[in-house]
Amino acid sequence: MTQRTRLVAAGAVMLLTMSSTAPAFGDEGMWLFNAPPLKQLQEKYQFEPDAKWLDHVQKSSVRFNSGGSGSFVSATGLVMTNHHVGAGDLQKASTLEKNYLRDGFHAKTPADEIKCEALELNVLQSIENVTEQVTAAVKADLAPAEAFQARQAKIGQIEKAASDDAKHVRADVVTLFAGGQYHLYVYKKYTDIRIVFAPEKAVAFFGGDPDNFEYPRYDLDICFFRVYENDKPVAPAHYLKWSEAGTTENELIFVSGHPGRTTRQNTVAELEYQRDTGYPYLLQRLFRGEVLLNSWTQRSAANMQKGEEDLFGIQNSRKARIGGLQGLLDPKLMARKMAEEKRLREFVTSRGYLNGVRTPAETAAIGNPAAAFDTIAAAEKLRATMINDATLIGNGSAFNSAYFGYARTLVRAAAEKPKPAAERLPEFGDARLKSLEEALFTKEPHFDDFEMLKLADSLTAFANQYGANDALVKQVLAGKSPRDRAAELVGGTKVKDPAVRRKLYEGGQAAVDAAADPMIDLAKLVDAKAREVRKAFETTVDEPKRQAYAALAKARYALDGTNTYPDATFTLRLSYGTVKGYTEDGKPVPAYTTMDGLYARSAEQGNKYPFELPPRWVERKAKLNLSTPFNFVSTADIIGGNSGSPVVNKKGEVVGIIFDGNIQSLVLDFVYDQEQARAVSVDSRAIVEALAKVYDAAGLVTELTGK
Amino acid sequence: MTQRTRLVAAGAVMLLTMSSTAPAFGDEGMWLFNAPPLKQLQEKYQFEPDAKWLDHVQKSSVRFNSGGSGSFVSATGLVMTNHHVGAGDLQKASTLEKNYLRDGFHAKTPADEIKCEALELNVLQSIENVTEQVTAAVKADLAPAEAFQARQAKIGQIEKAASDDAKHVRADVVTLFAGGQYHLYVYKKYTDIRIVFAPEKAVAFFGGDPDNFEYPRYDLDICFFRVYENDKPVAPAHYLKWSEAGTTENELIFVSGHPGRTTRQNTVAELEYQRDTGYPYLLQRLFRGEVLLNSWTQRSAANMQKGEEDLFGIQNSRKARIGGLQGLLDPKLMARKMAEEKRLREFVTSRGYLNGVRTPAETAAIGNPAAAFDTIAAAEKLRATMINDATLIGNGSAFNSAYFGYARTLVRAAAEKPKPAAERLPEFGDARLKSLEEALFTKEPHFDDFEMLKLADSLTAFANQYGANDALVKQVLAGKSPRDRAAELVGGTKVKDPAVRRKLYEGGQAAVDAAADPMIDLAKLVDAKAREVRKAFETTVDEPKRQAYAALAKARYALDGTNTYPDATFTLRLSYGTVKGYTEDGKPVPAYTTMDGLYARSAEQGNKYPFELPPRWVERKAKLNLSTPFNFVSTADIIGGNSGSPVVNKKGEVVGIIFDGNIQSLVLDFVYDQEQARAVSVDSRAIVEALAKVYDAAGLVTELTGK
Repeated sequence: MTQRTRLVAAGAVMLLTMSSTAPAFGDEGMWLFNAPPLKQLQEKYQFEPDAKWLDHVQKSSVRFNSGGSGSFVSATGLVMTNHHVGAGDLQKASTLEKNYLRDGFHAKTPADEIKCEALELNVLQSIENVTEQVTAAVKADLAPAEAFQARQAKIGQIEKAASDDAKHVRADVVTLFAGGQYHLYVYKKYTDIRIVFAPEKAVAFFGGDPDNFEYPRYDLDICFFRVYENDKPVAPAHYLKWSEAGTTENELIFVSGHPGRTTRQNTVAELEYQRDTGYPYLLQRLFRGEVLLNSWTQRSAANMQKGEEDLFGIQNSRKARIGGLQGLLDPKLMARKMAEEKRLREFVTSRGYLNGVRTPAETAAIGNPAAAFDTIAAAEKLRATMINDATLIGNGSAFNSAYFGYARTLVRAAAEKPKPAAERLPEFGDARLKSLEEALFTKEPHFDDFEMLKLADSLTAFANQYGANDALVKQVLAGKSPRDRAAELVGGTKVKDPAVRRKLYEGGQAAVDAAADPMIDLAKLVDAKAREVRKAFETTVDEPKRQAYAALAKARYALDGTNTYPDATFTLRLSYGTVKGYTEDGKPVPAYTTMDGLYARSAEQGNKYPFELPPRWVERKAKLNLSTPFNFVSTADIIGGNSGSPVVNKKGEVVGIIFDGNIQSLVLDFVYDQEQARAVSVDSRAIVEALAKVYDAAGLVTELTGK
Repeated sequence: MTQRTRLVAAGAVMLLTMSSTAPAFGDEGMWLFNAPPLKQLQEKYQFEPDAKWLDHVQKSSVRFNSGGSGSFVSATGLVMTNHHVGAGDLQKASTLEKNYLRDGFHAKTPADEIKCEALELNVLQSIENVTEQVTAAVKADLAPAEAFQARQAKIGQIEKAASDDAKHVRADVVTLFAGGQYHLYVYKKYTDIRIVFAPEKAVAFFGGDPDNFEYPRYDLDICFFRVYENDKPVAPAHYLKWSEAGTTENELIFVSGHPGRTTRQNTVAELEYQRDTGYPYLLQRLFRGEVLLNSWTQRSAANMQKGEEDLFGIQNSRKARIGGLQGLLDPKLMARKMAEEKRLREFVTSRGYLNGVRTPAETAAIGNPAAAFDTIAAAEKLRATMINDATLIGNGSAFNSAYFGYARTLVRAAAEKPKPAAERLPEFGDARLKSLEEALFTKEPHFDDFEMLKLADSLTAFANQYGANDALVKQVLAGKSPRDRAAELVGGTKVKDPAVRRKLYEGGQAAVDAAADPMIDLAKLVDAKAREVRKAFETTVDEPKRQAYAALAKARYALDGTNTYPDATFTLRLSYGTVKGYTEDGKPVPAYTTMDGLYARSAEQGNKYPFELPPRWVERKAKLNLSTPFNFVSTADIIGGNSGSPVVNKKGEVVGIIFDGNIQSLVLDFVYDQEQARAVSVDSRAIVEALAKVYDAAGLVTELTGK
C-alpha cells in the first residue's frame, strides 16, 4: 500500500501543474504522527523533528475519553488538561455541600486526590496501516449493507486481536480520509484517574459564555489529574518537561492533541447540506437546550450545580456552530470550496488520472471518482429527509435522560451479547465491550429533578416534531402530557441504581424481560424503530458516502500526494504554527495578554458575573508579577477536541496549553485560515505564577519545574 | 340586531336542557363592559354592579398601546401600571449614563417628569354594536377576498366617521366572537405621557426569569405615569380611589383591563394546529432570540442596557408558551375541548337549531354551522404550509431590525396613501394613519450594533429556512454573508434618522424612489412577495375561518345565550373572582405574601442576581412594617395584556394591580381553571408602604391616598 501511494504521489507531482489552487497553505494541517509535515517544517522553519522527538511527544500526549486532550507533565503521572475538560469530573466529585467545579480543588497530599468515575485516558503507543486488510474484506460486488457489515466485522477482528484488557491495551481501527485509509491505533489505557488540582471556575472560565471564543482573553483554563495503576501513581515512559521561559512572538510551536472532527474534505453538496439542514437543525436543538438549562439553573444554587456543565457544553457548541454556519453562509468561503472541488473534478476526469495513473483493477476497486460527487449529493438529499428519525429516535434525543441511555444499553446488550462478535452492533464488539460496561456501571450521581426536566422537554420536542397524533408519539406518551409522563418514567425506573443495572446486564434477556421497569419498557418500545432508522442511515447514507469519499480520497492522494492530512477523527495529530497576533476591524490584536489585563477586564465589567474574580485572586493581586504573560494566540491548526493539548517548543517542552480558538477560527471546521484564525492558549509562565502565588501550590510547582 | 340576538338567546334557553357540559364555571370570563356578568355576580356573590359603577371603572381604565393595561389613580392624571409595561419607556428615556430601567426613577417635581416617545394611552368612552352595518356590507355571494375587502372598507368607514384626530378621539371596530359581532369602541386618546416614578428593576422584577410565572412572589411591579394635554396634567373625569385597607382572603375583587388574546372558542382542529405547528414554530423562534440576546447582553453593561427589555419580553413569551403548550399536550385538557366541541356539533346538527331557531335567511347568511368545523380544519392545514412565508416575509421577521420596519412602512405608505381609503391596507386607513405616523416619526433611540445583531441573526434564520440557494435569499443577501449584509444595510441606511423618515414619507413615491437607501431597496425588493403572502393568508386562511367562526359563534349564542363572553381582543374586559390560595403538589400555597418574604427569598438565593435587592431596600429594611402584604393571588380570569390592570373592590377602589399569572394559569389561553390557576397582584398596601418608607415619595402617597 505504501508503495502504491508513493507511485500515485509521484504521478501527481507532474499533474499538479494542471491545478490552479494550491492544496494547503500557511501553517495548515492536523498531521498524522506517522506522516508528519517534515518537508513543510524544513522549508518554512528549517526545523525537522526527528523520530525520537515525535515518539516522545506522541507518548507524552493523552486522550480523555470524555472528549479532550492532555499531556503527562511529571515523572509521577501528573496529567495537565483544561479546567473545562475536567469539569465533568469536578462536578461528579462535588456534593451539594462541596462544589469543586465552582470553588476549585487542591489535593495537598496524594491521599486527598479524588478518584474519577468512568474516566478513561488513552496514550497512543503505535500506529499501523491496515488499509489493505480492511479493504480486502469488502468484495467489490457487495451491496452497501453487506459491505458495511463485512468491513465492521473485519475491523472488529483486527481490534480484538490487538487489544488486551488484562494489560490495559486498547485498539481502535481509525477510518482516515473518509475510508481512503484505515489505521490501527493501539493505546495504553488508564482508568484510575484522580483529581489533583483545579482553580475556581470563575478564573478558569473568566468571561464565561460572553468571552468564549473571543480574544484578548484572560483564562486560567487548567486542571491537573494524576494517573494511577495498581493504586500507585504511574511513572510514564514519556512526559513533557516544563518551560519556565515560555515563548516569544513568532516562535515556532507545536500542538499535539486530539482534534475531534473537521469536514475539510467534504464535497460542496455535503457542505450545502450542513449549511441548509444539518447546522440549522442542530442549532435549533442547542437553542432549545440552552434556554431550558439557563432558566432552570437560575432557579436555585442547587439547580446550578446540577446543570451548569451541561449548560456550558451547549453554549460552547452553540457559539461554535453559529461561527461555522456564518462561514458556510459566506459566499467567499463557499467559492473557495467550489474552486477546490472543480480542481479535483477536473483531475479525476482527466485522461492522465483515468487512464494513466490507475490500473484497471484500481478502477474496478474504487469506481468512478467523478460519479462519487453525485453519490454524495444523492446521499445528502436522503439524509435531510431522515434527520428527525435519525436524531430523535435513532440517537434517542427524544428521550433525553441518562436513565433512558442506561435502559437502551441494557435492552440492546440483552439482544447483542449472545450474538457472534462480528454480527453485533459495533459498540458491543469485543474490543469495546469493556469501555461500554464501565460507562454502564458508573457510580456517577444523577438527580431525578434534572432528569425529569430534560426528559419532559425532549418528549415535548418529540411530540412537536411528529405531531401529537402520531402513533409512536401516542405510544410513548401513553395518554399523558410530556411532563406527567417524564415524572412517571423518572420516578418509576430502577436503572438509576448501578447495582440494578449490573444485575439486569448480567441477567441477560430473561432479566430484562422480567424487569417491569417503565424506562426499560420505553427503550423496548422504541428499539425496533430505532434500530431500523440506524440501519437505514448506515446503509443508504453512511455507506455509499464512505465508498464515494474513499474514491475521492484516493484521487486526492493522486493529486496532492503526502502533501495532505486527513480530516480530524479524535485521534492524535500534530499541528504547528507560530505565536502571532492578528488584525481585526483594522486594529492590531497583540499575541499575548498579561495578568494585569485580567484585573482590568474584570473592573471594566463591574466585577460582575461572569467577570467576577475569585476572592483569592483579589487578595493576592499584590503578590503577582502582573506583567506575566497570561494567554497567547498562535497560527496552529486546531479544532474542538484539541482542548487541553500541550503547546510545545522545538525542544519538546511545554510552553502552554490550548483551551480555545478565536471567533475567526470557527470556520476551521471547513477551511484553514492563517490571516485571522488563531488558537488560544494559557501561557506556561502564568500557570506556575498562579500556582505559586495564588494557590500556594509549591509542591505542584516543584513537580512541574523541579524547583 | 339586538332584537334578533335576544330571540336567538331566548330560543337557546329551551335548548340548554339538551346539553351535557356546562358552558362556563367558577369565576370564568373576560366579560364585555356592555354585557357584564350581572347574573353570575348576583347569584354567586349577591353583588350587582350598577351602571354608574361600571361606567366609573371603565373610564378609569387605561390601555397602553405598547401592550398593557393601567388606570387613572389621581385627580391630576396619574396613571398606574406595571414596571414591565413601562419598561420600554424607561429604557427609551435612559442614556448609557443614566439607566432608569435598572436604577428606578422618581420625578420629585412635575418639571422632572420625562416625556415618553411614541407612547399612546386610550381610555374607552363608549361601545356601540355595529354588527348589522358590517355584515350588511358583505353580500352572501362574495368570494372570500372580496368579502374581506368589503368588510374592511365598511369598517374603515365606520372608524373614520367616529374618529376625530383634532379632538383626540380614536375609533376602532372590534371583531368579537371571531366575527359573530362587531362593536365600535370609541376612545379618548392621549399622546403626551410622562414618567413619574419607577422602582429599581431588581425589586420590580425580583426573581427575574426564574421566578416569572411562579408563586409565592415578592415583586413591586409598578410604575407611575402622568397624562398631559396642552402641556398640563389632565384632570380625568374618572379615576380610582386608593384602598389603604386592601383585601381580605375570599373577598370579591374585579379586574378591569385589556386581555390581549385567548383562543377559547377555537375548534379542536385549530388547537391541534397550535399544538403541533404554531406553538412549536413560535417557540423555536423565541429560543433563538433568547439565546442571541442573552449572550450579547452579557458581553457588556452597555449591551445589557440596549437589549434587556427585548430579552425580558422574549423570556416572558417563552415561559408563557411553554406552559400553554404543555396544556395543549395534556390529553385531559384536549378531551375537555373535544367534549365541548361535541356538544356544539350536536347542537348545530340538531333539528331544533337547524329548523326551529334559524330563519331561512339566517341559514343563507351564516351557512351551515356544521360545515364550519371542516372549513376551519382545512384552513389550518393550509396555514401550516404558509407559516414560513407568513412569518418571515409577510411579517418581515426575516429582517428583524427597527430600520427595516421603518423602510417597509415608507415603501408602503408611498403606494397606499394615494389610494382611496377603502382600498388601502387596513393600517393605512384614515382612522389609523395618525397612530402609524406617530410610530414612524418617533425619536426613540436605536443602536446600530444592536440592530446589526438582530438583522444578521434573522437573515441567517431566513437563509436556513429557505436554503441559501433560494432565489429570494440570494437577492436579499446580495452575495454576502448574513453578517456582512446586515452590516452593509444597517451602516448604510438613513431611515435611522426621524427627519429623513419624515421627508421620505411626505415626499411620497418620488422621494422613496430617489432615496438610494439600501434598507429602502431591501423593503422594495421583498414587498411584492410580502404583499402576496399576506393577501393569500388573509383570503385563504383568515377569511374562511372568520366566516366559519362567525357561524359557530351564532350557534354558540343560540346554545348558551348571554351566558358567555368573546375571546380576548386587547379591548377592555371585566373579570371577577376572589382572593384565594391554592394547593400545589399536595401543599397549600397561601393567598398573600409579605414584605418579610422578600428578604427571606433573597437571602435563600445568596442575594445574587436576579434575587439581589437594591441597596435602598437593604438600608430601609428596619423602617418597613415587614408584615405588610406584598403580593396576592386571586381567581380572576386574566391573560397577557392584563398586565397593569387595576384590581378593584366592590366600592370601586384600587386594592392591587395585576402583574402576572402563576404557572398553572398558562393554560388560560384555551380554558379557564379555577382549581389552581391564579392571577398574581401587587397589594395596594405594599405600594404605599414602599413609596413612603423606601422611596421617600410622600408627594406620591398624598396624591394617591389624600394623606
